[in-house]
Amino acid sequence: MTKSRSEGSLTTVRGLAALRARVAEWRLAGEIIALVPTMGALHEGHGALMAAARKASDRVIVSIFVNPTQFGPSEDFAAYPRDEAADAAFLDAAGVDLLYAPSADAMYPEGFATLVSVPELGGVLCGTERSGHFDGVATVVTKLINQVTPDAAYFGEKDYQQLVIIRRVVLDLDLPVRVEGVATVRASDGLAISSRNAYLGAKERAIAPALYVALKDAAQRIGAGAEIEGACAEARAALIAVGFSSVDYLQYVDVASLEPLATQDRSARILAAAHLGRVRLIDNVAIKN
Amino acid sequence: MTKSRSEGSLTTVRGLAALRARVAEWRLAGEIIALVPTMGALHEGHGALMAAARKASDRVIVSIFVNPTQFGPSEDFAAYPRDEAADAAFLDAAGVDLLYAPSADAMYPEGFATLVSVPELGGVLCGTERSGHFDGVATVVTKLINQVTPDAAYFGEKDYQQLVIIRRVVLDLDLPVRVEGVATVRASDGLAISSRNAYLGAKERAIAPALYVALKDAAQRIGAGAEIEGACAEARAALIAVGFSSVDYLQYVDVASLEPLATQDRSARILAAAHLGRVRLIDNVAIKN
Repeated sequence: MTKSRSEGSLTTVRGLAALRARVAEWRLAGEIIALVPTMGALHEGHGALMAAARKASDRVIVSIFVNPTQFGPSEDFAAYPRDEAADAAFLDAAGVDLLYAPSADAMYPEGFATLVSVPELGGVLCGTERSGHFDGVATVVTKLINQVTPDAAYFGEKDYQQLVIIRRVVLDLDLPVRVEGVATVRASDGLAISSRNAYLGAKERAIAPALYVALKDAAQRIGAGAEIEGACAEARAALIAVGFSSVDYLQYVDVASLEPLATQDRSARILAAAHLGRVRLIDNVAIKN
Repeated sequence: MTKSRSEGSLTTVRGLAALRARVAEWRLAGEIIALVPTMGALHEGHGALMAAARKASDRVIVSIFVNPTQFGPSEDFAAYPRDEAADAAFLDAAGVDLLYAPSADAMYPEGFATLVSVPELGGVLCGTERSGHFDGVATVVTKLINQVTPDAAYFGEKDYQQLVIIRRVVLDLDLPVRVEGVATVRASDGLAISSRNAYLGAKERAIAPALYVALKDAAQRIGAGAEIEGACAEARAALIAVGFSSVDYLQYVDVASLEPLATQDRSARILAAAHLGRVRLIDNVAIKN
């Protein structure tokens, strides 16, 4: 299905009208279109999304938009890494057809007032620490999907709560798009690749893989029949022991409702967020029974 | 642009897959598709929406869905008039191509959790009396538009706050649809046609046109230079004098922000809601300067 495409042919589009015109051309030609929404600072994790999109589509559109509404007042919006030239080179090498890079003023013009929210899923886990974050995510992803009107949109399993919320929004609002989750890409020592890993000092970077180790360990023990809350509590304690300053949560939850589960369930996953120095790391693993 | 269509050819569809298949056929044939969302209990007001849709489109889809999430706990959801046979006959006579009548279970399956809201526009005027009402409206209209994917969707100016909120949602979420507002249809004595007029007793029905009279009068006086809050206060007093039990609001507001305006503005409208017996009537008029 993949069209051959020569390097150096990446098109950058900033306006909605130009985006829609290009998408309309591709539609008319009967092409399958994929969207990979990102905030830039592209890395191998995004690369895996693009590769999955490339494989299943004729055209791949990557959006880069550092969305102000999903950052809390004390978060790193201003400091979030931005380097469009480097990102464009990355996209070009990845065989992406179009970079959609709208401005914040175009996305949120004067008078903007609408919110898409999933209160039950957006207020738990990361949502308790990051109030309003998932409303910002749900709203901007709804906008991007409606702007691009792709056949499929690709999201990483790394941000698992985000993926669950986006699946819920797409299903609930009947957005005519397929949501594809892509497995987390990890460094050779297991650390999940993330733009925010750049904030880790050398010592913290050495400690960081313990998050994945603790999750894998808890998952393996629960899969083998260990008591759930006990296994999670031990994993949390292990993180503090190796130098994490605090654990926001490390919980065995239902993959659709995100509710904590006290007993073994086939559709469960362990999700965690923990602070290491000034960096908040998240990760998650499936349970293999 | 209008296709000829013989009476008796109305198709009724209840499932989303069947709806999308039919719409896809029409799209493939290059036809322009209009949606008129309704809660049934069809009357001349709806008829005007269908006529406007018919005129500008090849295909007209009318949805009938009495949306539970836009009724408050003390409102008339259970008692809301439902007569699908009568409605289908109305649609057939109006030259409508397709009746989309989904079930509440299909619209809100187990686990449904997403909300579309416009807090600033949905919490004022009717929203202060009817908490959550406009969240229900915004969410269901977003769903219906995404399900039908029409070129245009038609709404009455009678529910002016609703129209403003829907315009806002469509703009803010980049829904690829044109929103068309259609002028209020009135009985010969000026009363705005509404499904809830059926609840009016004979004596109340005789009093009800005073709402439009009061609005027109205030609009005319303000257009001629009268002080705004004074003219609105007199209109409210006039309603109480003729037998309305209370006036929720009668305000001169900006047509986009719905904020009360204290001075003359070209983009203003007077909106009102008032109780007559057990019926709550709403109406609104433009200002002609």
